[in-house]
Amino acid sequence: MSELVLRALSGVPEISRGNNLAQVSQIALAASGLSLHEGDVLIFAQKIISKAEGRQVDLASVQPSSRATDLAIATGKDPRLVELILSESTEVLRVRPGVLIVEHRLGFVMANAGIDQSNVPGDGREMALLLPRDPDRSCLNLRTTLRAHAQVDIAVMIIDSIGRAWRQGTTGHAIGVSGLPALLDLCGAPDRTGRLLQSSELGLADELAAAASLVMGQANEGRPIVLARGVPYARREGSVRELLRPREKDLFR
Amino acid sequence: MSELVLRALSGVPEISRGNNLAQVSQIALAASGLSLHEGDVLIFAQKIISKAEGRQVDLASVQPSSRATDLAIATGKDPRLVELILSESTEVLRVRPGVLIVEHRLGFVMANAGIDQSNVPGDGREMALLLPRDPDRSCLNLRTTLRAHAQVDIAVMIIDSIGRAWRQGTTGHAIGVSGLPALLDLCGAPDRTGRLLQSSELGLADELAAAASLVMGQANEGRPIVLARGVPYARREGSVRELLRPREKDLFR
Repeated sequence: MSELVLRALSGVPEISRGNNLAQVSQIALAASGLSLHEGDVLIFAQKIISKAEGRQVDLASVQPSSRATDLAIATGKDPRLVELILSESTEVLRVRPGVLIVEHRLGFVMANAGIDQSNVPGDGREMALLLPRDPDRSCLNLRTTLRAHAQVDIAVMIIDSIGRAWRQGTTGHAIGVSGLPALLDLCGAPDRTGRLLQSSELGLADELAAAASLVMGQANEGRPIVLARGVPYARREGSVRELLRPREKDLFR
Repeated sequence: MSELVLRALSGVPEISRGNNLAQVSQIALAASGLSLHEGDVLIFAQKIISKAEGRQVDLASVQPSSRATDLAIATGKDPRLVELILSESTEVLRVRPGVLIVEHRLGFVMANAGIDQSNVPGDGREMALLLPRDPDRSCLNLRTTLRAHAQVDIAVMIIDSIGRAWRQGTTGHAIGVSGLPALLDLCGAPDRTGRLLQSSELGLADELAAAASLVMGQANEGRPIVLARGVPYARREGSVRELLRPREKDLFR
């Protein structure tokens, strides 16, 4: 019997700039009565990575460009927020009232460049929270530190709730990985009748991200660290870039 | 601590037309040393539902129309397969060499109308397997039968591996549900700082489908029934239609 267990850790405090998330994880693991096993995957909500890395921006500090002001009028959004979205993006894909869908500089197609305004404390100031600068690197750093302390090699992932084309509702998606393949290539593997499989690639990290999102709770904020045990994967470094469909091969832009 | 456990059942035999999947599940649960608990979700790979419901088609029995023949030339696909795809679809969205993306009559945007040719035994004949006729109904029927036998109310889901816009790799998606909400509306819920949440809807059933797909194994065929325990959901009937973005609100067609 194949078994996958996902546990949201207890006792993760509110995270602020400069917090050591490897240490936070270890304390939360201990508080949850858990330890890391070889091959586990530790999954972090984007929000706490961004907070620890100091990606909070005070909207009062942002000067909107004229392009941002135009897009703010078209979408009904705050021009300073739109300025931040543009500064995080390489391309604007769709503009509608209430909607601004872009390609983030990291390659993700998402609303508002993944910038979040909920649950960002700012002592009365209006704050926005950007995605981590280099989520694969954040994962690698966490993994390296955790390995040094726990003496076991685990994989680390950062996830965010992202909307999809065609289907309602956000789902958890990987935005950074280290230590596991983001994409599994099944190309050419024979099925049980000997026929070659048609559907050749599996979005492993995104499937795991969706699973973790389920136990993080609504808006992935109540319990932002999840330990996954029993994930079937072959060890390798991995990168979330594996999941990005090259622009020229994407039929839905 | 919040915990989600997904177990792929052992001992599910090759399924053919007319097999009773409620009975198959109960035997596989027993063989796996498991029983159903109130609130569990039992998740089935589309392929075994389709097989049990007799959705196999012998390609030799299909007469391609002239439109199917044209699309077969444009895509390099078998004209009889294209004919089946068209008969299962309401709209053709993209046509490229090797690619035919349609809206399935059930509302799903997917390649090849979800028609599968791998692992469909046909005694030497070339077989194709269509999606179930009414997957929500299939789930309700299974749920009702299982409830009658096990005396507990569970939810039932059917999943399929479906490709996405913008990202590589297929992931598990719900194509039928009974007994759980497919979409969770978080609209207007305040965050922990009192601010209203922006991202208002969560694709609950798709997150669970992705999680189940992970433990089903490559191509969702090795272990096609998964028991999920600890899914956080409020009981209600539910329908996969909740997940379908209305065509006029979809910016990526």
